[in-house]
Amino acid sequence: MTQNRRIAVDVMGGDFGPSITVPAALDVMSRHPRLELVLAGDASKIEPLLEANKADRQRIEVLHCKQTISSDDKPEGILRSGRGSSMFLAIEQVQKQLAGACVSAGNTGALLLAGRHLLKTIPGIEKPAIMATIPVTRSGGYSYLLDVGANLHNTHTELFGFARMGALVATSLSGRSPCRVALLNNGEESSKGTAVIQDAARLLSACQDFEYIGFIEGNQIFSGRADVIVCDGFTGNITIKVSAGAVTAMKRQIQRSISKHWYYRMFSWILSPLFSDLRKEVEPTRYNGATLIGLQGIVVKSHGHADRTGFSRAIEHAIKQINDNVPALIASRMAADPVSH
Amino acid sequence: MTQNRRIAVDVMGGDFGPSITVPAALDVMSRHPRLELVLAGDASKIEPLLEANKADRQRIEVLHCKQTISSDDKPEGILRSGRGSSMFLAIEQVQKQLAGACVSAGNTGALLLAGRHLLKTIPGIEKPAIMATIPVTRSGGYSYLLDVGANLHNTHTELFGFARMGALVATSLSGRSPCRVALLNNGEESSKGTAVIQDAARLLSACQDFEYIGFIEGNQIFSGRADVIVCDGFTGNITIKVSAGAVTAMKRQIQRSISKHWYYRMFSWILSPLFSDLRKEVEPTRYNGATLIGLQGIVVKSHGHADRTGFSRAIEHAIKQINDNVPALIASRMAADPVSH
Repeated sequence: MTQNRRIAVDVMGGDFGPSITVPAALDVMSRHPRLELVLAGDASKIEPLLEANKADRQRIEVLHCKQTISSDDKPEGILRSGRGSSMFLAIEQVQKQLAGACVSAGNTGALLLAGRHLLKTIPGIEKPAIMATIPVTRSGGYSYLLDVGANLHNTHTELFGFARMGALVATSLSGRSPCRVALLNNGEESSKGTAVIQDAARLLSACQDFEYIGFIEGNQIFSGRADVIVCDGFTGNITIKVSAGAVTAMKRQIQRSISKHWYYRMFSWILSPLFSDLRKEVEPTRYNGATLIGLQGIVVKSHGHADRTGFSRAIEHAIKQINDNVPALIASRMAADPVSH
Repeated sequence: MTQNRRIAVDVMGGDFGPSITVPAALDVMSRHPRLELVLAGDASKIEPLLEANKADRQRIEVLHCKQTISSDDKPEGILRSGRGSSMFLAIEQVQKQLAGACVSAGNTGALLLAGRHLLKTIPGIEKPAIMATIPVTRSGGYSYLLDVGANLHNTHTELFGFARMGALVATSLSGRSPCRVALLNNGEESSKGTAVIQDAARLLSACQDFEYIGFIEGNQIFSGRADVIVCDGFTGNITIKVSAGAVTAMKRQIQRSISKHWYYRMFSWILSPLFSDLRKEVEPTRYNGATLIGLQGIVVKSHGHADRTGFSRAIEHAIKQINDNVPALIASRMAADPVSH
């Protein structure tokens, strides 16, 4: 199908807008010779970038619009006020089956609301979730954490749904099967955690869709022990932001240490490339491409501060999910074996 | 009072036991000429260390016992089986008013159970909490996070109690008054969060004991914006462990980057002191000395893997709280102005 070769990109989202998103999209296009792009955004900003980068115009459609949803816009009003925005235009491409997936670095709350509104939840899925990518430093691979903020509280059957969906998406993205799935908890012992987590553990351990490995603690999420880590949306949101905050704090401390000692200052020319390396490689949030899962269409959320490489990674995530037809995969698993309450 | 010059130390707890805890305690004693120590633990291990460090025996009492609570012991059975342990002996010194505070690097769950059992909760306090120290990299100061694991769920009045107690302890430890207090949440906007957090926000904003600054997100906890950050025990436990995990992951990544490139390998002799600096300064968990607050006595929990400097810092925390008579301070605030439901 043609739609599966087409990805809709909201080029206006994120801290840098078209100057980053357009070149990133062209990078991906050059790696995938059959890929076509729909670029939603301000044509007066997009066209010069296509020109400058000598883009293959045969494979690019520009959907012009003036409206942009900013990171400060309240998600609540977005369904009324955001209809003409680049974000809505991109999602509508998926809704109308003109594109196989959409990618945006815009306002997460707005993307979630618009995605649910336009694409609807997969039958049998209680709640959609946002799945974040976590770097595994030991192996250079990735783990996946969900939900990181589509929800606040979740029931044990919702957590079970996250585990099943997460395992399918993780297998698509990483190739690993069966996935090792864990529940994020305040201890590894089987007696630990809330009633919801205890009930979810019972459901997960009885499921054949994945390998349930039990509870995992906060300090283990980067260890690679689990491919998929499941928690409610509030806990996941705190987790992903705390890890970003800890990394930023550590970088600041490295810089303080360097500027404090003459010894390091003297060698700062040696250290500087190392730190630019670290900036690229280490920040968990840079392992870019959070996926909204549970919707009848593929929506990938890039971080707002993603650079060209980061944004192109988010588009690569979308391509993998298109190739595996992830929403259909989730729908057929849920239809074959619904969650029993 | 004599008891206020005496600190009881469980020297058997932690990854390294007396070889770290005894020299650390002696370091603190040398800085505080009137301080007396009660060292609870195996005398056959303590005595040679006192000898080797030429300790002032006039100011040291050794409470000999053979029993130790290990980190693997289940807290549940501890009230029966742990009675003769070094941890119980240390807490009993506070209970019997023979010491002004106790310090242990042992099993947190056991310390909490034994502390509550022996010392009892301050009247008017619904639930005790564990307060952790968070480094603020920008200023080199500290913030405090509670609860990090004494509880699982908490009600809004319990969170309010944590805020009031936390502000009093933080003022004792940092000297800052009034304290800026924030609630950890999934967003800064006033509409964000669970019903419990929303209700807690109303109580906090009406309280005159501290300056309530609103919600704080996970990435802001190291920023120094708040002196005291309040959350339920489950969220706090995840937060403190995720930040430790993120820092460990980043260190591992730095080491990978160095070993990967000939350029860095060549200069590794320059880099190595920097990394030993980082190991000491950056790890959030090294900012040592979590306090069990809300009990009728001072109990400071050192991290199990604290080194000599780290463990001595935990003892310094205890001294500060003795000097300010923190449990009495909390009791009088609670009696003067009980939490209204």
